Amino acid sequence: MNSKYNLPALLIVFLIQLSGLFNNPATGMINRKRKIINDPVHGFITIDDPLVSDIIAHPYYQRLRRIMQMAFAHLVYPGAIHTRLHHSLGAYHLMCMALSELKSKGVEITPEEETGARIAILLHDSGHAPFSHALEKILIPGMHHESISLLMMKVLNEQYDGKLTTAIDIFTNKYPKRFLHQLVSGQLDVDRLDYLTRDSFFTGVSEGVIGYDRIIKMLAVHNGDLMVEEKAIYSIEKFLVARRLMYWQVYLHKTVVAAEMMLVNIVKRAKELISNGANVSSTSHAFDYFLRNEVVMAAGPQFEKFCLLDDYDVMATIKNWMDHDDMILSTLCRFLIDRRLLKVKLRGQPFDDALVADMRNVICKKLNITEAESRYFIFTGEAENTTYDPSEERINILFKDGSVKDISQVDNALIHQTLSTPVKKFYICFFNA
Amino acid sequence: MNSKYNLPALLIVFLIQLSGLFNNPATGMINRKRKIINDPVHGFITIDDPLVSDIIAHPYYQRLRRIMQMAFAHLVYPGAIHTRLHHSLGAYHLMCMALSELKSKGVEITPEEETGARIAILLHDSGHAPFSHALEKILIPGMHHESISLLMMKVLNEQYDGKLTTAIDIFTNKYPKRFLHQLVSGQLDVDRLDYLTRDSFFTGVSEGVIGYDRIIKMLAVHNGDLMVEEKAIYSIEKFLVARRLMYWQVYLHKTVVAAEMMLVNIVKRAKELISNGANVSSTSHAFDYFLRNEVVMAAGPQFEKFCLLDDYDVMATIKNWMDHDDMILSTLCRFLIDRRLLKVKLRGQPFDDALVADMRNVICKKLNITEAESRYFIFTGEAENTTYDPSEERINILFKDGSVKDISQVDNALIHQTLSTPVKKFYICFFNA
Amino acid sequence: MNSKYNLPALLIVFLIQLSGLFNNPATGMINRKRKIINDPVHGFITIDDPLVSDIIAHPYYQRLRRIMQMAFAHLVYPGAIHTRLHHSLGAYHLMCMALSELKSKGVEITPEEETGARIAILLHDSGHAPFSHALEKILIPGMHHESISLLMMKVLNEQYDGKLTTAIDIFTNKYPKRFLHQLVSGQLDVDRLDYLTRDSFFTGVSEGVIGYDRIIKMLAVHNGDLMVEEKAIYSIEKFLVARRLMYWQVYLHKTVVAAEMMLVNIVKRAKELISNGANVSSTSHAFDYFLRNEVVMAAGPQFEKFCLLDDYDVMATIKNWMDHDDMILSTLCRFLIDRRLLKVKLRGQPFDDALVADMRNVICKKLNITEAESRYFIFTGEAENTTYDPSEERINILFKDGSVKDISQVDNALIHQTLSTPVKKFYICFFNA
Amino acid sequence: MNSKYNLPALLIVFLIQLSGLFNNPATGMINRKRKIINDPVHGFITIDDPLVSDIIAHPYYQRLRRIMQMAFAHLVYPGAIHTRLHHSLGAYHLMCMALSELKSKGVEITPEEETGARIAILLHDSGHAPFSHALEKILIPGMHHESISLLMMKVLNEQYDGKLTTAIDIFTNKYPKRFLHQLVSGQLDVDRLDYLTRDSFFTGVSEGVIGYDRIIKMLAVHNGDLMVEEKAIYSIEKFLVARRLMYWQVYLHKTVVAAEMMLVNIVKRAKELISNGANVSSTSHAFDYFLRNEVVMAAGPQFEKFCLLDDYDVMATIKNWMDHDDMILSTLCRFLIDRRLLKVKLRGQPFDDALVADMRNVICKKLNITEAESRYFIFTGEAENTTYDPSEERINILFKDGSVKDISQVDNALIHQTLSTPVKKFYICFFNA
Repeated sequence: MNSKYNLPALLIVFLIQLSGLFNNPATGMINRKRKIINDPVHGFITIDDPLVSDIIAHPYYQRLRRIMQMAFAHLVYPGAIHTRLHHSLGAYHLMCMALSELKSKGVEITPEEETGARIAILLHDSGHAPFSHALEKILIPGMHHESISLLMMKVLNEQYDGKLTTAIDIFTNKYPKRFLHQLVSGQLDVDRLDYLTRDSFFTGVSEGVIGYDRIIKMLAVHNGDLMVEEKAIYSIEKFLVARRLMYWQVYLHKTVVAAEMMLVNIVKRAKELISNGANVSSTSHAFDYFLRNEVVMAAGPQFEKFCLLDDYDVMATIKNWMDHDDMILSTLCRFLIDRRLLKVKLRGQPFDDALVADMRNVICKKLNITEAESRYFIFTGEAENTTYDPSEERINILFKDGSVKDISQVDNALIHQTLSTPVKKFYICFFNA
Repeated sequence: MNSKYNLPALLIVFLIQLSGLFNNPATGMINRKRKIINDPVHGFITIDDPLVSDIIAHPYYQRLRRIMQMAFAHLVYPGAIHTRLHHSLGAYHLMCMALSELKSKGVEITPEEETGARIAILLHDSGHAPFSHALEKILIPGMHHESISLLMMKVLNEQYDGKLTTAIDIFTNKYPKRFLHQLVSGQLDVDRLDYLTRDSFFTGVSEGVIGYDRIIKMLAVHNGDLMVEEKAIYSIEKFLVARRLMYWQVYLHKTVVAAEMMLVNIVKRAKELISNGANVSSTSHAFDYFLRNEVVMAAGPQFEKFCLLDDYDVMATIKNWMDHDDMILSTLCRFLIDRRLLKVKLRGQPFDDALVADMRNVICKKLNITEAESRYFIFTGEAENTTYDPSEERINILFKDGSVKDISQVDNALIHQTLSTPVKKFYICFFNA
Repeated sequence: MNSKYNLPALLIVFLIQLSGLFNNPATGMINRKRKIINDPVHGFITIDDPLVSDIIAHPYYQRLRRIMQMAFAHLVYPGAIHTRLHHSLGAYHLMCMALSELKSKGVEITPEEETGARIAILLHDSGHAPFSHALEKILIPGMHHESISLLMMKVLNEQYDGKLTTAIDIFTNKYPKRFLHQLVSGQLDVDRLDYLTRDSFFTGVSEGVIGYDRIIKMLAVHNGDLMVEEKAIYSIEKFLVARRLMYWQVYLHKTVVAAEMMLVNIVKRAKELISNGANVSSTSHAFDYFLRNEVVMAAGPQFEKFCLLDDYDVMATIKNWMDHDDMILSTLCRFLIDRRLLKVKLRGQPFDDALVADMRNVICKKLNITEAESRYFIFTGEAENTTYDPSEERINILFKDGSVKDISQVDNALIHQTLSTPVKKFYICFFNA
Repeated sequence: MNSKYNLPALLIVFLIQLSGLFNNPATGMINRKRKIINDPVHGFITIDDPLVSDIIAHPYYQRLRRIMQMAFAHLVYPGAIHTRLHHSLGAYHLMCMALSELKSKGVEITPEEETGARIAILLHDSGHAPFSHALEKILIPGMHHESISLLMMKVLNEQYDGKLTTAIDIFTNKYPKRFLHQLVSGQLDVDRLDYLTRDSFFTGVSEGVIGYDRIIKMLAVHNGDLMVEEKAIYSIEKFLVARRLMYWQVYLHKTVVAAEMMLVNIVKRAKELISNGANVSSTSHAFDYFLRNEVVMAAGPQFEKFCLLDDYDVMATIKNWMDHDDMILSTLCRFLIDRRLLKVKLRGQPFDDALVADMRNVICKKLNITEAESRYFIFTGEAENTTYDPSEERINILFKDGSVKDISQVDNALIHQTLSTPVKKFYICFFNA
């Protein structure tokens, strides 16, 4: 792995010796084995598995430091600048807690499975592009971030002599003990438990708080599936309602949506200009590559490029484009950087096409741009969220008498039929100079 | 102010009309007057002053979103990625609380003074360079960030027709009511009260918690000076001890120091290569400008360049330099990005010069570099902090009988003579491949 | 007011002089005017109104220190030992916040109304009997605690020369500005906002957390009625769901219900024995009085007796009855004190009468007691709670366009028709030795 | 153990069968083995040891529910009504964490030792009298509460067939592994870590917060002694300063001292009246017994009486004495109940004897009482606290190189020589009608 740092091998040997001058070997060993990380959300996170330590130290994982978990949500909630690295460390911590809880209830989990589940959650989001969901579709079209996470696990599996095989099987749900996969990805996975808690913490939206510790204490495995004990019913209701609140109040906040759509339009415009032969370059080689190519991701050079791509490339490039000759590109960039965001209206019904056409018409004349170009400034869209969809993935409640019911089937449930229909809202974005 | 957005004036008029189509004017006015910002640290921050609103919306202020408060502390404390914008909003909030408290105790403060003090604190750190203290000395040598903050206030004062004059007088301590300046900058200013609280919150170092709300409740003005009531003595002791702890455990954490020294060395090396005529360019025009020139800052183009400079320019540039031809530059960049940090030893006594020379000697031969160049890899330095220096700025305690004592003179004080001597620690940094 | 402390008037004069020896009059005045109380829930509570200060210092109000807010909930949640005094101080604090918020939005509220609303909330629960709801019906049959609170306000109004008249009008909803009453008693009153927050805090049931600060920021007055702005919809949903959770997980927790029913049975048995002429006396004169008499409460001696009654009377008496000759009384007392609680089963359907009769039959024979007596050991009951009942009291949402809708009528509402039906659960309690 | 509940043995058998009707045996077993208790301070506390469960359920332990941890501190800090039961459960939880941490560092601890240490901490304070320290000396003169805790452990050891022997050896420091005793009772014991954290939490004095989790993570065993790793130095400093703050701001708060001295004077006066043959009786048999006798505590009837004594006995009795014929007794009782507390002045120098004598002289004449009696109303005293006394018990820091230093000997220590001298303050209490 050191090969790519262009230091002569001899120097490396020397430096290791040098470091030995000051190192207490015994202490050093302790440090290698066991690290403690301060987390304002969960307290102390302990890393005591050498493989986990190595993966965290790997440049692929360190890249997640440079990708914000919530993209532009910080434009509304200034505290929301936590990183994907921080979230995945938190999810790792909850995985440790959940596994330990299940073991104490008599569920059999081997050390190898434990390491596998920990690594699967640590890397579950490692395939995210900069600014997460917003740019994913336009930068790496046709490939979901989970597929890239999987690709990354496979590349790492080669580097670490197959030690990630169990993690990969768990991640891809090929591992016989289904509940391990369900802890990584399911209605009650530790991913959600961490991100809802963490996003609520960093935004300061205290109402998003969920009883993650109580839910974890109530986890059970029944017939091979992950479920929760009866006593957790109200906590689960609270969890689903908190998620609903976070979606509409934070993730789909109209100002956040506006900023993310501006980012998408910036990248769209840049690609359009490039395809028209204009001089539009990113100062980042990696970002440039993805702007100019429709990449089919696989192990190899383009994957290495992906592993260098982060929020810094995108933002620094946008800052440079603030002075670009193309009025549309430069205006979008300048407005995004200075937080002069598109105005958004959100409502339950679609906007009238004729009205939108009229608005575009006016702007075309004023700015002397085409109708197609006006769509960078005035456009409509939809935001959608389902509170609980039992058809897709179920939250099962295990009753004391051994029976199992879906949360939406429990007596007097808050979570009922109508909440399984997605709520759709329509928005229009336009400039408000 | 709109002049620099290259939109035709007519378009702007049109867009304002357009926005009127959807806006409820009444509501709009309310929104203009009063904004509420979620802060995970203080709860809700209310902005109800139009001038304050305008300054927050100004690109100069929005730049602070892109400068982390704690530079590379997040390499040790992953939560510590909060921004200078967030901190200054928090300090603004505490200023509002402090002023309201003093008024309720009968201290006379006019609305104009209130706005002045609020703006002074809002902009007190606006002159920070990227990565704050670390780069300040090398990027803008000979000019302290407070001078740049002052320059910014003056430029804004022209844009806003002199409305910042009181703020400037308070900031520069020319305003007759001294206590207003002391709230902005003094041993007990709201700047410290916020940053200790906020840094403690985001790092998760709960021991840095201070009783800022109690201290604010105990503030008093006596003979024109800011002081605290007798009942706050223990809170003040706790505040000073918490600050001491934060310095040694967080701000001067050896790994944080190592990362920041690597950043300094990167910029030093880049400037050295540039002065030698090598091809080293930043992808950011603003950063490039400061790398190539010894800037004497004043209002005008170079100030506008400064106002574009942020962490993104620096990080994106360092990422590009990971592949630079110069082995020293590329190694430092690669190691910083991948968090392969210099090894640091910290101790009470200086390191032996002969030993350091020997170490450099070995590395020179191995890497075939000069002794001067080896100093990028192996170097020593000092970290220093004083718990409480009564000679510089005093914390005065107001007793019930009207007498005033410095905190270090109070009976049985924890804060005594010896704590006024700076504690100096010596470090050596070197590679540990 | 001093008349009831049997000190000679001269002594009082002397003591006042004496205290003057040490008192700084200026400081003393400040202290009289302005007190700060530490509250772990809300931070600092400021008391700056002399009438409010006097009422808090009154023995009627101090009695609330000796009545736990949550009766026997601490047998399940050991932290839940906070007092009614603490809760009403917290509600007072939220009232101050709410009034200040409304004023800043242009709602006209006079200083007199402000004091009135503060006192109304401070005393809203002052008529509670020991152990709150549990004992109310059996100790003071036919009189709701709110009527006693009103009586107390009237008695105090005489002592304070009519200064509580506005408070009484607000409390009884006779004051023209309806929203002031709605802040004291309504779906969104500060009483609920405080008790849900406080009970959640002290039990450690973090899921009961509500966004009380956000709700208060979103309060509005429209056509004279209290409502919340559109932006608060999700916070209101969360509030109703948190309340639902707190009811079923805490307030109606089966073990808590069991303990409270044991307390009721103890008092019932004592009254039964007394009416049969047995020697059963409370060591507390006040408690004794209410055990022996069906009191029709009015100002006068029996009201003064009520104002002495608290949890200490009840618990100390029960401890004495642990050794009473009556086996039923002593067993119930001993088991309650030693936390050997009745076993409870809770379910959606009523329990079969025949089964219950059989159970009682067996216990009658074994213990040689009558069927009526067996009902102290084996009994059934119902617990009921409605998540949201729009027919009774509405939560109105004020939309930006000025329209008003009930929360259950809003598009995609979580709070729908079926949640307005009360959920009823049936329980059986029986001994489990 | 059931013998003292006067139920026929047959009934007990029956009730057990009855309970079986509804119990799922499997679940029942799980419940017996593993209980989860909500703690607002530490989250969830898990009880998974049957012996620990049994001890918690024992009436001796349940008594701690009825003794407040902080006596009358709630008269100043209304939230401070947490119980000794709650604190000892918290300390138990921290013990579990500390043992688990030490084991993960390679310290050998057997399951038997683990149970022993857990029980030792659970019962360490079980010998406290009502209102804790205040009444201890006057109610049970000549016997420290720790001796009574030990006596209780011995009585329980007989009831549980010697299963508490290890716990007793650890508690009395006879167990070979000294560090186990040091965890129960030492400068860094889990008792202090819990009570500082808990008292800070419930009073709302956020400045008392200590980094207990960090300190626990840094615990180490070296040469058989408990110490902390070098990295914890600043946390330890903060811990000692937080304790200092809690002492002067909370535990020795002058109003709290006044209330506790009033309580002491009430009991003194009652005992004096009793010894003079007056009719003064407590309504509680247990309290009456200790008022009338100088008890030499040992296993047997007087110990059983002690195990019934709690805050309720004392408070209910004081409430009754509010109407006692003796003016001194009734005045003290009435004033304490109504929170009309003695006025206190606190200062660094003793009060002048002549002045105090004069004051008493005046009050004697006015009230027609003797000089001795006037001492119930006007008296002086001392409060004393040492920040850190290295001569008594040391906090040892373990350095990376294996050396050990006392915290006060570390370079640049905050905790220095002068802090080892006790700070003494003098107070005078007198009525302020």
